[in-house]
Amino acid sequence: MEKNNPEAKSRLKKQIAFLIEVDKVKNIFRQTYLADGKRKENDAEHSWHLALAAVLLKEHMAEDVDLGRVMTMVLIHDLVEIDAGDTYAYDMEGAATKREREVKAAKRIFGILPEDQGIYFRELWDEFEEYETADAKYAHLLDNFQPLLLNDASEGKSWEEHGVHKSQVCRRNARIPETSEIVWEKMLEIMDKHIAAGRLKAD
Amino acid sequence: MEKNNPEAKSRLKKQIAFLIEVDKVKNIFRQTYLADGKRKENDAEHSWHLALAAVLLKEHMAEDVDLGRVMTMVLIHDLVEIDAGDTYAYDMEGAATKREREVKAAKRIFGILPEDQGIYFRELWDEFEEYETADAKYAHLLDNFQPLLLNDASEGKSWEEHGVHKSQVCRRNARIPETSEIVWEKMLEIMDKHIAAGRLKAD
Repeated sequence: MEKNNPEAKSRLKKQIAFLIEVDKVKNIFRQTYLADGKRKENDAEHSWHLALAAVLLKEHMAEDVDLGRVMTMVLIHDLVEIDAGDTYAYDMEGAATKREREVKAAKRIFGILPEDQGIYFRELWDEFEEYETADAKYAHLLDNFQPLLLNDASEGKSWEEHGVHKSQVCRRNARIPETSEIVWEKMLEIMDKHIAAGRLKAD
Repeated sequence: MEKNNPEAKSRLKKQIAFLIEVDKVKNIFRQTYLADGKRKENDAEHSWHLALAAVLLKEHMAEDVDLGRVMTMVLIHDLVEIDAGDTYAYDMEGAATKREREVKAAKRIFGILPEDQGIYFRELWDEFEEYETADAKYAHLLDNFQPLLLNDASEGKSWEEHGVHKSQVCRRNARIPETSEIVWEKMLEIMDKHIAAGRLKAD
């Protein structure tokens, strides 16, 4: 790439503006506690954890996936929360307006990038939201399994605080069994352990 | 992957143990401030930011790179700090014992994984440390450029606090010009702006 190429300079400027804008997700906190239970996790930490887990857990998926696409998908899947905020998985009121808030956010945030890159990220985010392809299914599995692992490590603190029922977790994870049987088996094992300990409500 | 495959179950168990262990990097704080200047950044947030930047800035690199490898490399490059702690870029005393502390940490932390995955991560980390391949050079560029962008956004706060000189930044970034001319040009532009504002020391 030429040093004095004005097109490259203009692209770099937009890429930097985007990278600074998305720094804000480091201050968007989720309802899940870190493994040590001391504070809640933010979206940047969560997304880092999912991308790393993507590298490790691929072998357990029922369908072939494109690892690079899944990693990028999970790295960007929560950026819309910069404008739309985090909607807790079991917040039914928030869920009603979530889609509209997030689409507007996607337009603004991905619009900061050079056009081709903005389109690429928007397509990946749409694919994640549509939850149909093997890559999107893997990304959702990671997005659901990681907080469950943190809930387990932090002794079900977040479930207890929100009075969550097993049926709610199962409904949210309805497509995990077809994505990976072994991960679903592990999720059930973790849920049952916390039901026995009185931190997750049986139905 | 079979649900009742004991080998797969044993692998999943190790992968989960690793994912919970590395949750600790969310509490390892760096010397760089977030763009808003309000608090310092932790290793998980930093690594997320680098992996995302890897997707966007590839076009500016002088050599071809393997994006998936670079993303994985930056996602894991700071995990050794769980045991070894963060050594500030311009801390000469810490630098003397850094290598020994980090190699010991790499053995323990990557050793939690199934053997093949532990070897893969160790090889990627070694490659990053050796700083020779095109992938390692891109990973280092990201690791150095991202804090510079945050320093710029947070008005040189970290440089000011540590009394950093431009020559120190240039020494640390000696291999950036050969990795990407256009990124190096941007880095010089940012440094000169903060010298003019009195936040980075000229030499």
